[in-house]
Amino acid sequence: MTITPLPEPAALDRIRVVLSHPSHPGNIGAAARAMKTMGLSRLVLVNPRLFPDAQADAMAAGATDLLVQAEVVASLSEALSGTVLAMAMTARRRELAVPALWARDGAAELVALAATGEVALVFGNETSGLANDELAMCRRWAMIPVDAGFSSLNLAAAVQVMCYELRLAALDPGLPPAISGAGLLASHDEVERLIAHIERAALSSGFLDPASPKRLIPRLRRMFSRAAPEKEEVNILRGLFAALEKAAAGPDCK
Amino acid sequence: MTITPLPEPAALDRIRVVLSHPSHPGNIGAAARAMKTMGLSRLVLVNPRLFPDAQADAMAAGATDLLVQAEVVASLSEALSGTVLAMAMTARRRELAVPALWARDGAAELVALAATGEVALVFGNETSGLANDELAMCRRWAMIPVDAGFSSLNLAAAVQVMCYELRLAALDPGLPPAISGAGLLASHDEVERLIAHIERAALSSGFLDPASPKRLIPRLRRMFSRAAPEKEEVNILRGLFAALEKAAAGPDCK
Repeated sequence: MTITPLPEPAALDRIRVVLSHPSHPGNIGAAARAMKTMGLSRLVLVNPRLFPDAQADAMAAGATDLLVQAEVVASLSEALSGTVLAMAMTARRRELAVPALWARDGAAELVALAATGEVALVFGNETSGLANDELAMCRRWAMIPVDAGFSSLNLAAAVQVMCYELRLAALDPGLPPAISGAGLLASHDEVERLIAHIERAALSSGFLDPASPKRLIPRLRRMFSRAAPEKEEVNILRGLFAALEKAAAGPDCK
Repeated sequence: MTITPLPEPAALDRIRVVLSHPSHPGNIGAAARAMKTMGLSRLVLVNPRLFPDAQADAMAAGATDLLVQAEVVASLSEALSGTVLAMAMTARRRELAVPALWARDGAAELVALAATGEVALVFGNETSGLANDELAMCRRWAMIPVDAGFSSLNLAAAVQVMCYELRLAALDPGLPPAISGAGLLASHDEVERLIAHIERAALSSGFLDPASPKRLIPRLRRMFSRAAPEKEEVNILRGLFAALEKAAAGPDCK
């Protein structure tokens, strides 16, 4: 194994993902995979209809370890044992005593509270969601903003979105991956020499009138600035212009 | 239909989701469902291995209309016809001439550019990703931050995360859903009357010594403030205290 794991914050290890009464084992597996891609590992299942199950294993892909370690319990109350906060995901606009949070704010709150103890994010059944007595055990509610005309978010897809938000809330992703082949991009000087070369070729070919240069060169400079060419591309272009100049100046040019 | 669709910004209608060479029809269906939950509708398939397919329909759930309308083309170049920008999703740290963007920034850029014309978000094959010549057709690259030890994000899950980010970038979700049963929460005055009632009961029962009240009442006030009780809960508590006071004062009290 040459993969070097990034340092993971303890927050993600303190967040349980609870699936209450999931109907489809495939969703359990896909949820495990979704969790693991985002660095979460603690799956709790309340009364799953079918578990363990071959379809859960198949959908988990390389995350079957989360299924093996998953806790299976008989009630949401058991699943929340030891937590300081449970947040319920809800898809419907319920008569809530406390307004729901949007997913992003909910994830931020959950991560912040994970610093004080174990927390849980609770997802209900695919069709019926969470029962009212289950909702009542959760101090907070969160919603993923969906299209009003089609709000049918798949269970594992909702787990994926929330785990993604939890990861971003817990972990500064830093800068995007840097260019691994250092020096690939042409330097400013190299681009300027290319532009000088183009200008020379444009003048010698008569394409550019030095008395009325218009905006030709500044516009090319702007284009190359946007393009951020690689060294090799600059070399190719310079080679091409050199060849054209040589051909234009050479004895074979009739 | 009683659902009132929210006004959707034109940006989401100008974003094509391109799946290049998808292997599993189930992923195509799940991607369509993911798109539709977030208000996107334009799916383009480059050389899908199996399409149309019953498994795609099954995984699309209520989003089969996106599959029916999906464009099937033979090359990425065709898929990008008419676009002003194509952004490629990449999972690997490639030798890119331009650093990749994180998903959130990529989505913001794509939505901003959608104001100027058609744009595309391009996902590669489940196993092999995008070919180098496909990547070269995309001016921008974006990555979803994943766990370094397990980066195996499912294709449809990646589509879900990106469409979620696109939706948030395109559409201010506004305030979370308001409480629909107005008046459910107890008012400040009702909570204060409850606290006064508790104080009276605590004094009359001898539990609270008026000469040394400690911090009992302020602490209860803080707890009720956090709890944000509903009117009905306040009424229940007041009824309970009234009953206890009556029992304590009554002739049957020995």
